Amino acid sequence: MLAPTMPSSLSVHYSFSLSPGDTPEQAAHRLAIEQTAELPLAVIPEAALPMAGRVVSVATVEGSRFVTEIELPSEAAGADLGQLFTLLFGNVSLLRGVRIERIDWPSDFLAQFAGPRFGIAGLRALARVFDRPLLCGAAKPLGLSAHELALRCEALARGGLDLVKDDHGLADPPSAPWRERVARCQEAIERANAATGGHTLYVPHLAGPPSRLTERLAEARALGVRAVLVAPLPLGLGTVAQTVAKIAATNEVALIAHPSLAGAFFTADHGVAPEVLLGDLFRLAGCDAVIYPHEGGRFPLTPRDTAALRDHLRRPLGTLAPAFPVAAGGVDPARISQLVAALG
Amino acid sequence: MLAPTMPSSLSVHYSFSLSPGDTPEQAAHRLAIEQTAELPLAVIPEAALPMAGRVVSVATVEGSRFVTEIELPSEAAGADLGQLFTLLFGNVSLLRGVRIERIDWPSDFLAQFAGPRFGIAGLRALARVFDRPLLCGAAKPLGLSAHELALRCEALARGGLDLVKDDHGLADPPSAPWRERVARCQEAIERANAATGGHTLYVPHLAGPPSRLTERLAEARALGVRAVLVAPLPLGLGTVAQTVAKIAATNEVALIAHPSLAGAFFTADHGVAPEVLLGDLFRLAGCDAVIYPHEGGRFPLTPRDTAALRDHLRRPLGTLAPAFPVAAGGVDPARISQLVAALG
Repeated sequence: MLAPTMPSSLSVHYSFSLSPGDTPEQAAHRLAIEQTAELPLAVIPEAALPMAGRVVSVATVEGSRFVTEIELPSEAAGADLGQLFTLLFGNVSLLRGVRIERIDWPSDFLAQFAGPRFGIAGLRALARVFDRPLLCGAAKPLGLSAHELALRCEALARGGLDLVKDDHGLADPPSAPWRERVARCQEAIERANAATGGHTLYVPHLAGPPSRLTERLAEARALGVRAVLVAPLPLGLGTVAQTVAKIAATNEVALIAHPSLAGAFFTADHGVAPEVLLGDLFRLAGCDAVIYPHEGGRFPLTPRDTAALRDHLRRPLGTLAPAFPVAAGGVDPARISQLVAALG
Repeated sequence: MLAPTMPSSLSVHYSFSLSPGDTPEQAAHRLAIEQTAELPLAVIPEAALPMAGRVVSVATVEGSRFVTEIELPSEAAGADLGQLFTLLFGNVSLLRGVRIERIDWPSDFLAQFAGPRFGIAGLRALARVFDRPLLCGAAKPLGLSAHELALRCEALARGGLDLVKDDHGLADPPSAPWRERVARCQEAIERANAATGGHTLYVPHLAGPPSRLTERLAEARALGVRAVLVAPLPLGLGTVAQTVAKIAATNEVALIAHPSLAGAFFTADHGVAPEVLLGDLFRLAGCDAVIYPHEGGRFPLTPRDTAALRDHLRRPLGTLAPAFPVAAGGVDPARISQLVAALG
């Protein structure tokens, strides 16, 4: 039998708290093994060692908090983002005090992903806005009929918004079923555009059931839609990356991601840093824009978090196009100038 | 236009912490609205009010911790578990100090779900074990070849385990690709069964990409597999409920759920109680058995958590069959008798 070759490694930086009686090195080693072999090192057969997590370094951050760099075998996930999420945080999610702070992505791993098909430049071209931030608003609330939501879409488009989206709570309720809502709201936006000469985009929320995603995306495109809202965590990161993003690309529809459920991962000492989850992973999944709760709104992300998130969406990352950061969550009008400076 | 009828309500019990300057009633009301209308009450149009979250009660739990019962409109999710997760915790995940403690499920909502197709009785019949707990072990580690994993499967089956599963880290790696691994491990288990007269089941891990789930389930069944391991959170709860569980039912394959990523929701003051996530939601998704980290193992669930989880998997819930609790996560041999008492 051939000896297994050394697979390409993801370098994952975890911070962790120390349990009494433990050394930082032991704790780091346990994290590495928990996510791969799930066996004590002594009983891992030699043939399996290349696929076992490996501790590269351990350092103190402050007090009883440590950080470790661990190499994980990217081949365990392949190009499946759902399995990647399991490889990165599946079992250690069930521990306490462990947080993914950063991931160094090798280029051969990144090369498996198409990433954002529109990205910032493509979304700007769709909206025909090249020299200022895009303005995005939502037609709401859940509970209105398709007709009433369409009236609100029209008013928002006439008011000058570049994107008018559904709330992510709006999927396919009897009050405003998907197909009727998309048809009416898209019509309403086109009516407004015809009147103003504008290019506002309607962004309907594409939700499950998973078996209907393909059909719904094609329906929306046939009605003239060029961008949809998706929630990658409830849908499954893999479903967005490997199903939705591919169909969206075929249909030339852009993907705008909602952070629904992401906050479960955002505690200070356990979970995944916002820039890794909403930045790296959502961008790998092919999202062209990512909505995030801006600081100063009604959600508690810090200025450091949101700056890092914007950076991760736009920084060079293999050959992946940059994705648009979309500040949301109740933005105080007094902070608009600060936002313009941050978003460009 | 017809007035919207009052949709059936999910009664969701959230615990929450109070921010300075807030009253418990205001905070509860904001949770209710955050998950539905996302608008101040004063500007919600009357037609949309039946779909707005409604605070039923607010009470103090201890000190600055409160609990509120909120009615949410189940029609906003329909039968889509992904959208249900968004309705229950999508935006409030991004707040701090909010936890779902309990959900009262109305029977018309439950009636939309087939639930576990095998359940406890069906799994016992597959394994031909009726009068003692089932014993489950894993062939590991990740990194071994299909041939080597098959040898371990055979040894575990000869050793008397009722179920021999893949680790959830094992998806489709080059070291042991899905099809070859399933074929060899299933063969090995059948060889052991033929030798011992036993009925051990091999339980391969069914992972993404989502577009191949149907094909892989059929492949496994054709090879003789009667149960697969799935990880509902990385795959998407809706994908498991609306795709995997349906194909599994057609193929007469049982679903054993892995709690990968679930721990992100298990902090003491923010997230979703383990018995709601792994108990209610995984059972609604059609999982016949749910693996959970038992207290006293290497994960920090409490005796109260695991007792509640076992209860939620087995208690009466509409017409849904009870699901098997599977204790895991490093079980100390000294605690086996305690486990037998808990699991039956």
